[in-house]
Amino acid sequence: MIPHHDGSALYVSNPAPALGETVAVFVRAPAGTRISRIHTRFVRDGEPVFTSAVVDRRDASGEWWRAEVEVRNPITPYRFLIRTATGAVRWLTAGGLTSYDVPDATDFRLVAHPPAPDWSRDAIVYQIFPDRFARSAAADGRPTPDWAVRCDWDTPVEGRGPLAATQLYGGDLDGIAEHLDHVADLGANTLYLTPFFPSRSNHRYDGADFGTVDPLLGGDTALVRLTEAVHARGMRVIGDLTTNHTGDTHEWFRSEKDFYYVDDDGGYESWLGVPSLPKLNWGSPELRRRFAKLAQHWLTYPYALDGWRIDVANMTGRRGADDWTREVAALLARAVRQVRPDAMLLAEHGHDATGDLDADGWQGTMNYAGFTRPVWSWLRDDEVPFPDFLGVPEEIPLRDAADLVSTMTAFAARTSWRSRVASWQILSSHDTPRIRSVVGGPERHEVAAGLLFTLPGTPMIFAGDELGLTGYNGEHSRTPMPWNDTGGWDMRTLARHRALARLRGGTPALRDGGLRWLHATGDLLVFLRETAADTVLVVARRAPGLPVRVTGLVPHAWGDNLYGGAEALKSGADGSIEIDGDGPTFQVWSVRQHPKGC
Amino acid sequence: MIPHHDGSALYVSNPAPALGETVAVFVRAPAGTRISRIHTRFVRDGEPVFTSAVVDRRDASGEWWRAEVEVRNPITPYRFLIRTATGAVRWLTAGGLTSYDVPDATDFRLVAHPPAPDWSRDAIVYQIFPDRFARSAAADGRPTPDWAVRCDWDTPVEGRGPLAATQLYGGDLDGIAEHLDHVADLGANTLYLTPFFPSRSNHRYDGADFGTVDPLLGGDTALVRLTEAVHARGMRVIGDLTTNHTGDTHEWFRSEKDFYYVDDDGGYESWLGVPSLPKLNWGSPELRRRFAKLAQHWLTYPYALDGWRIDVANMTGRRGADDWTREVAALLARAVRQVRPDAMLLAEHGHDATGDLDADGWQGTMNYAGFTRPVWSWLRDDEVPFPDFLGVPEEIPLRDAADLVSTMTAFAARTSWRSRVASWQILSSHDTPRIRSVVGGPERHEVAAGLLFTLPGTPMIFAGDELGLTGYNGEHSRTPMPWNDTGGWDMRTLARHRALARLRGGTPALRDGGLRWLHATGDLLVFLRETAADTVLVVARRAPGLPVRVTGLVPHAWGDNLYGGAEALKSGADGSIEIDGDGPTFQVWSVRQHPKGC
Repeated sequence: MIPHHDGSALYVSNPAPALGETVAVFVRAPAGTRISRIHTRFVRDGEPVFTSAVVDRRDASGEWWRAEVEVRNPITPYRFLIRTATGAVRWLTAGGLTSYDVPDATDFRLVAHPPAPDWSRDAIVYQIFPDRFARSAAADGRPTPDWAVRCDWDTPVEGRGPLAATQLYGGDLDGIAEHLDHVADLGANTLYLTPFFPSRSNHRYDGADFGTVDPLLGGDTALVRLTEAVHARGMRVIGDLTTNHTGDTHEWFRSEKDFYYVDDDGGYESWLGVPSLPKLNWGSPELRRRFAKLAQHWLTYPYALDGWRIDVANMTGRRGADDWTREVAALLARAVRQVRPDAMLLAEHGHDATGDLDADGWQGTMNYAGFTRPVWSWLRDDEVPFPDFLGVPEEIPLRDAADLVSTMTAFAARTSWRSRVASWQILSSHDTPRIRSVVGGPERHEVAAGLLFTLPGTPMIFAGDELGLTGYNGEHSRTPMPWNDTGGWDMRTLARHRALARLRGGTPALRDGGLRWLHATGDLLVFLRETAADTVLVVARRAPGLPVRVTGLVPHAWGDNLYGGAEALKSGADGSIEIDGDGPTFQVWSVRQHPKGC
Repeated sequence: MIPHHDGSALYVSNPAPALGETVAVFVRAPAGTRISRIHTRFVRDGEPVFTSAVVDRRDASGEWWRAEVEVRNPITPYRFLIRTATGAVRWLTAGGLTSYDVPDATDFRLVAHPPAPDWSRDAIVYQIFPDRFARSAAADGRPTPDWAVRCDWDTPVEGRGPLAATQLYGGDLDGIAEHLDHVADLGANTLYLTPFFPSRSNHRYDGADFGTVDPLLGGDTALVRLTEAVHARGMRVIGDLTTNHTGDTHEWFRSEKDFYYVDDDGGYESWLGVPSLPKLNWGSPELRRRFAKLAQHWLTYPYALDGWRIDVANMTGRRGADDWTREVAALLARAVRQVRPDAMLLAEHGHDATGDLDADGWQGTMNYAGFTRPVWSWLRDDEVPFPDFLGVPEEIPLRDAADLVSTMTAFAARTSWRSRVASWQILSSHDTPRIRSVVGGPERHEVAAGLLFTLPGTPMIFAGDELGLTGYNGEHSRTPMPWNDTGGWDMRTLARHRALARLRGGTPALRDGGLRWLHATGDLLVFLRETAADTVLVVARRAPGLPVRVTGLVPHAWGDNLYGGAEALKSGADGSIEIDGDGPTFQVWSVRQHPKGC
């Protein structure tokens, strides 16, 4: 084991400090690592400052070193310089322990901007694509718009071609309200709805008006009914705001040319060249004003949404020499905070959000890069690869557990811990194949779901994943929920999701604990989530193999099974345990030291 | 050998593209790497775009794959996705080849902001601390100011205590002009002068007036004489501008409170708490206006400096919630460009400039982080470590060649190639111990100087290093040049510097070539610098050892020695060569394939 620090409360006296505060940070030096001294380096007004760490306490797991960091700037990078008894000197950053110098980019970070709301730390998000979740009785009476192809609930979804955007199944907001039991039983507590604004597609990312709820979904009053019903259960609802573009039928596109990139010939910039999605020009002060008010409107009475997911945040405000992205994020963050200090603001970003997080803006991202891809490429079906790796033009690669950890670390090390845990970890969404199709069966699906609920980050479940639904791409995965075909539900997968959500809800270390990787090779991944009170051991194995001896627990520790394992688990005098060769398997253990130490 | 790309002209059709341009980029796949396809990924308005690469040509070294990158934004990150015949898929970024996903931060970059001036690519910089370089006859008649302790030229320099800033040796600008033969004979072509403004210290970083040259140095007219003499030789002069603070005797500090951080009690912010150095507040529009005019003033007739080194650029504009640094850099870049499009603008930054480069601002940095520290920690005296690692509170660590490459790569990968080559690589400066004291003797000093002149970057020599002078810290290293004690000059070290500067000047690949590391373990470092016309092999060994076989040349290559080696060098049919065990040694070879290929 190597010395460890992360941004969790176990290692940081205040993970959400105010500007000017001094924060104590801790390094845990496992027993057996003979450390002669530790310095902390933090950056103050652009210049490194070193302070000496001291041994704060010793326990069975080793020494805890403490140092002070001054939060002088909104983002304060810090790291540790560790000298061992043999004279070796190493840097410890969020990127790991190195014998050579590294730039500040992977330093740990304290952030003094307003943090994500407290409730978001315990959120389990359930993503709903409104047209496909559930129909209320009122849906039957609604006319079919001219752009739409009306479908029965059991019509197969077209994943490609023109029908992909025009098949209309008629799900609505009251339909969602009628099925909150399902969501609550699953253990989710936060709905995320893809857009509900009027548009000319089933996905509604081509918004024609951000000021009303689509009548096809039941209109404004249906939203009020839904948010009231959700809030009555102590749950939350997140909306979806398209900041990069509107639909070409939006009135702004006729009346407010300054809001777009329109040239003298009438040509205009659009999202990836799709003419129906003209791109917004955030250089316009009036657009900023109008949009900020809209963002506020839906968060306040009587709608009272609890936050926004921002669509195409990665491109928003970026075009040629223009780069207003962080200004837009700051504008929306301030606007949202003004009316709802407890609201969530989360950015869609498909390839690398790290450069846009930790500012006064997005609280987190949809973590495809740092979670979805590494999990997929570890757990994908061995035999049947998917042809599209979330836009990367190769099959999903089959990688080992070490690569999973390397990818997760590479992305996580470039944001604060708090941005990591506020980000949504995702196995599937309306923009991806379904996890079930990627992994090929229920066994690896369980392992994937296990990681979803036990790694640091906010679990997001795409409605239907819990039933084992399949889908070969984003459009195809927008499956109508099979309410009337419960015989087709994979009850084992549903039960596993419920158990895992319950486990997370009942285990503070899985929500707020630090993370230490114990083992990551080939088929086996073992890690700890830890708070001051609890240590939780997670074992994930994608395939059967040989038993593996893993070190890093305290000596003579006992494991009580919390999920997926059978017998008790006991570490030897050297703190090692043997992980047997069964697999695929996902197991969670509560670990404690035997009171007699033997 | 692995597939290679870097930002040099060998791999990029236009390393200084205009916004909107499409640039061809190349990957060299060495013979024997069986590649089935390559995609290029670049980021366009925040979204990744993939294009297919094609085989452009084949030569003895392997296949050259070509792809197009659209320079849509001022900074365009790009990388390669490489699939081998065995189905393995890897990313190639400036950080290297990885089997897992990595953030954009280490992507290669094309930058469309105005580049550093062409002449800077061939610059060899010679740093002069004016008080200590040379006295003209006129110096004798100047009065000693009240703050100063007048010293004879051969008085030992005090490295610590109050005398460190007050010992006045009386070097002046005419003294510099009288010794340009020495600079030219050395092969340097660009003078960098630390500040010449009036102040109350020998280092003059406490400027009292940025509008005149210190009379102790000869005043404004002496500067005109110096720049004219320098320009008459086809050489250049860079000045030193303090943007973070002024001296407390500056008139601004009395008359322009808005230019500083002064509180109601008269307390004020100062550089690292030193009261004589009040910090400038770049929130002041008037300060910005005045400073930009000053920056322009000295670049124009009759002074005609050729650029600025910006002191404490890392802290400039940063204080608490304020972060104007990039705005200041952009302001100065535009101001400088307005009067002198061919001027250089370079930032002092001691620990990590990567976050501040590649914007429209600093063209490069003093590369302590990516050059000085890795070279020092590879070449430091084995027995006698220095106690201070450039502000890092540990001895200079003794690291192996692999760590040198890891550090250099970690920093270089986070800037564009052009920012790397425009940055100054430094073995010592007025702020550090002398390289001779760090490495302990002439043998490793030669190896260090060899790296200085052959790695990508602009060599900067601190006056006196070429004579083998010593110094235990920055203040102590501000040695008066021993013009009258030529018996104390290390003529071998001087000859080596001259030979290396001549070698660099005569070898385009050492100035503009790409870089491929061939070998880096323990005591041995081997790399190639390559243009389309030339391949140069560099062998650096810090100590004697066993012979090492190194691969990566073309088969049947011949090496003609350019520096430091004796016999010819010949690669086998597998492109390998044997490096013998002699050391310390520094050798440079021109490599060509035998015309018959045998």
